[in-house]
Order: sequence, then structure tokens, then C-alpha cells
Amino acid sequence: MQRNQCSSFYLGVDGGGSKCKAVVVNRDLEILGSAVAGPANPCVDYQLAIDSIIESCSKALGEAGLSQEQHQIELGLALAGVNFGNVFQKVNEWSHPFQSMHLITDWHAACLGAHEGKDGAVVIVGTGSCGYVCVDGHSKSFGGHGFPVGDKGSGAWLGLQAVKTALLAKDQMGPPTLMMDKLCESLSCKSEELAIRMVGASSAHYAQLAKTVFAAAKEGDEQAIAVLREATDYIEAMLSSILEYEPPRLSFVGGIAPFLVPLLNSDLRKHISRPLANPEMGAVYSLLKSAK
Amino acid sequence: MQRNQCSSFYLGVDGGGSKCKAVVVNRDLEILGSAVAGPANPCVDYQLAIDSIIESCSKALGEAGLSQEQHQIELGLALAGVNFGNVFQKVNEWSHPFQSMHLITDWHAACLGAHEGKDGAVVIVGTGSCGYVCVDGHSKSFGGHGFPVGDKGSGAWLGLQAVKTALLAKDQMGPPTLMMDKLCESLSCKSEELAIRMVGASSAHYAQLAKTVFAAAKEGDEQAIAVLREATDYIEAMLSSILEYEPPRLSFVGGIAPFLVPLLNSDLRKHISRPLANPEMGAVYSLLKSAK
Repeated sequence: MQRNQCSSFYLGVDGGGSKCKAVVVNRDLEILGSAVAGPANPCVDYQLAIDSIIESCSKALGEAGLSQEQHQIELGLALAGVNFGNVFQKVNEWSHPFQSMHLITDWHAACLGAHEGKDGAVVIVGTGSCGYVCVDGHSKSFGGHGFPVGDKGSGAWLGLQAVKTALLAKDQMGPPTLMMDKLCESLSCKSEELAIRMVGASSAHYAQLAKTVFAAAKEGDEQAIAVLREATDYIEAMLSSILEYEPPRLSFVGGIAPFLVPLLNSDLRKHISRPLANPEMGAVYSLLKSAK
Repeated sequence: MQRNQCSSFYLGVDGGGSKCKAVVVNRDLEILGSAVAGPANPCVDYQLAIDSIIESCSKALGEAGLSQEQHQIELGLALAGVNFGNVFQKVNEWSHPFQSMHLITDWHAACLGAHEGKDGAVVIVGTGSCGYVCVDGHSKSFGGHGFPVGDKGSGAWLGLQAVKTALLAKDQMGPPTLMMDKLCESLSCKSEELAIRMVGASSAHYAQLAKTVFAAAKEGDEQAIAVLREATDYIEAMLSSILEYEPPRLSFVGGIAPFLVPLLNSDLRKHISRPLANPEMGAVYSLLKSAK
């Protein structure tokens, strides 16, 4: 197999609790292909994570008309859960089919992507939640301990709060809430079936129910508004801690961010800039930095 | 194989998230043997539940010098999770090796045991939490929707609250708490390892950490005291709802009950009587009632 520097391509992958996204670019960082596959959190299911990574890469390479057999492909891999040392090590020892692999946390990739590889900070509010700042070669994370022990304000946390609050209301052990109707609608079930439907539910499952909190709050439901207040209190406290590090730019990323950001207090909100690129591109930037 | 009514024996089994207990009695309800095996919540792991039931029964029969091959053994089986219709059906269709089987919820067994088969109510605070009242042939349950969506005030809930609160304190996103030290001691880990140690933890694992809340509260830790206040508020509300049904007797059962009951308000506490027998015996009472 002939390999030369001129024909090399970069794969950037961002895998988390709900999905795995891949992008393939050439040396000029022009996007040639992209794809999405299933969940890729190695803490939850290592083999599923590997399968999702491979699937998203194959699809993205296919879209670009490339293959790892015929081209020199370097992988920048960003994953949830690799902030834990033993998980990092396990994934890093993976016998991947690429020319090389550079592994970083999904937080780091989100930050690199949002600021095109430059210094800055991100608050990630997707399936999970986390803050990350990277300034002058130093980085620090805030929260991000995983669900259900951490990840407050995240999609999974919001979904769980919705179910907990709705079940308390059903038992007349808590105030009534529209969230029960929204949950039953979302899950196509009766209120009697809600608890059994959630047995063994993953963080990704709970995150799919986060929208019920926003929908109920929009209709003035006090319980939903209280859940959102607790979420924004936490995210605002995280944001304040991050701003002490004076990052040159700060962005919010993740599927819940567009719904939560408008609820934050305006003094904090003025520090937020839009992400310049996505975490998959952040994984590519990390690859380029690691090669320097 | 010769069978006759005179040589029949009764097995009573109570299985939940942490363990499975079995008792074997003769027709005069004299206890001939008892045993404990591992977790038996069919919602969490059906096959493990079946294995634990078989193991506890075999041990108890062994202690009594009996075997299901040589004696006529009837099984009263009480299990967590069979309040859900589809779970009840699956367990009820189990090809068990006994002469007959009568399946009820663990709540019902706890109630029948506590009041020796008579009317009454129970509040169960063990790995999970639930209220159950049985008066004049009518029964009603309170809470008990499973962890983490329900089971407030339970061992699993207390353990999770301890970890959540400790991680917030570690991130300086919440007030400091002694619970972190207690958790690290209990898990033989450093505070940095706490989150990874909890990945995928079962309700039984969380319940093992409930003691850290009581230990920290005993030393005046305000965060632990607040967690216990939230637990007792919920259990007191449940107790008030149960008392509206005017049960002739009311008992607390479960591993967390002895620690939580002293914290309840004294007006409510005066309604509490000690359980007369355990849930395994409750399962035997249900068997006898079903045969009538």
C-alpha cells in the first residue's frame, strides 16, 4: 500500500451518550464528508462506542469517496467518559484501523472546535453537562461527573427531573404538573406505565424527555419552571466560575444549549459567542496540534 | 413420587434489589430453615433474580433437611418489581420446580408479615421505598416507582444524594460536606475517583452508601442533615396519606427504617408498631390465604 503525506486526510470524531458524529477533511481543512451514528460513550457500553465510531467514520469516508485501506487517514477522536483515566487508557489501546489516532475528551474537542483551535471556554449542555476552559496551555473542567451523580442541568438531568416530578404529582405527594401529559405524549404511554417505561433507561433516553420540561414551562407550569430555574442556577454558577479564568471567547454547545441559554441572566449571556466550528472539527484541530 | 397433604411444607421468599431471603415452615408455621442469597429484582436482572430465588430456597430447604424432589413444597414468592403487570406475568410464567407458586409484591408480603396476615399498613424503607396499606380486602400503594425516578428517602436515594452533594462540594458548586470523606472511606477511593466508581452503579450499590449520610449528619454536617430532612419530609407525607386509610396497625420495615424512624415527628411516630413477622413469613401467609 502506497502512502505519502500529500494524500493524507483527517477524520474528526465526537462521540457521546446519544450519538457519534464524524467529519473527514483534507489538509486544507475542507470538509469532504460527514456522518452520524449511534451512542458512543465507552463508560456506558465500550463495544457499542467502538462500533458507533467505526460506523460514523466509514459513512463519512464513504461520502468523501475515501477508504482507510487506500488512503492515509489520521483520526482525531473525542469521546465522552475519557476524562476518567482508566477509560482513556482502554480506548487509547484500541487496535483502530487508522494510520494514527489522537484521543481527547469531548469537552476539549468542543472547546477547540468552538474557537477554531484557539484559547477559550465552553459550557456543554447536551445529554450531559460540563464546563471546560483552556487558556495559555492550561485547562480545567467543571462538573461533568456523569449521570445520575452529576451532569446537573443536562438533558438527562432535565428528563429525570420531569419523570420524578410527574410521579410525585401522580401520587399526590407533590404539586400537579403538565409534565406528566407531555411525558405520556412523548412516550406514547399512560401515566400508570411511566415508571415501568423508565426501568433501566439510559442517560440518552432521559435526555430525549428534556423537551417535556421546556414545553410545560412554556405553558406556565410552575413545576417545570422550577426545574428550569434549578438548571439555570447551576449553569450560571458554572459560568461564573469559568469567567474567573478570563477566557478570550466563551461558547455554549450541545443540544439543550439553544433552549437553556435564553433563560440565563443577561449579564452572563453577553459573554457568550457562537461556536465557530463543531466538536468534530475540534477533534481535527487537536490532531493538528498534536502533530506539531 | 408419593405426595400427601400431611408432608407438605411452605417456602416463603422475599426478593429485592439487594438480597433474597427464604424461610421454610411446616403446616404449624414452625420455622425449619432460613437462608439469604443475592439480589432478586426481576426488573434489574431477571435471570439473576431467578438464580437468587433458587439459591435461597435450596439453602433454606437444606437447612431444614428437605428437598423439592422428596417433599411437597409450596412457594409463596414476594418480589420487588412485580407491581408492574408485565414483570408479574413474566415471573408468574416461570417454570419453577415447586408443587405450586403464589406470587405477590414485596410490599404486600411486608404488610402481611408485619401484621401476621391481618389488616394493616407498612412503610418500607430499604434499598427502595414504598408505602402499602391493606384494609377490608382493599389495598393501595404509595410511591415505589423504582430508582432513580422514585423511591425517595430510600437507601438508594440517600446514597445517590450523598454522591451528588459530595461532587458539587468538590467542584465548589455547593457547600462543603463531610459526606465526601465518608464516601471515600466506604469505597476505599480518593475523591477524584468517586464519579468513575459510580458509573453504572445499581440501586443496591447506592443503598450501601446510605450510611454515609447518617454518619455525616451525626457529626453535624449540614448538607447531610438537609438530605435526611428531605427524606423524612417525604416519608412523613407518605405516612400521613396512609393514616387516612385508618389501618389497625402500622409498621416500618427495611434496612434503612431503624435509622430513619427516630427522625420522624413524634405525632406520627406514635402510630408505629413493631413488625410481628418478616416479609418472608408474609409470603407464607399469602400462600395460606390463597389456598382458602
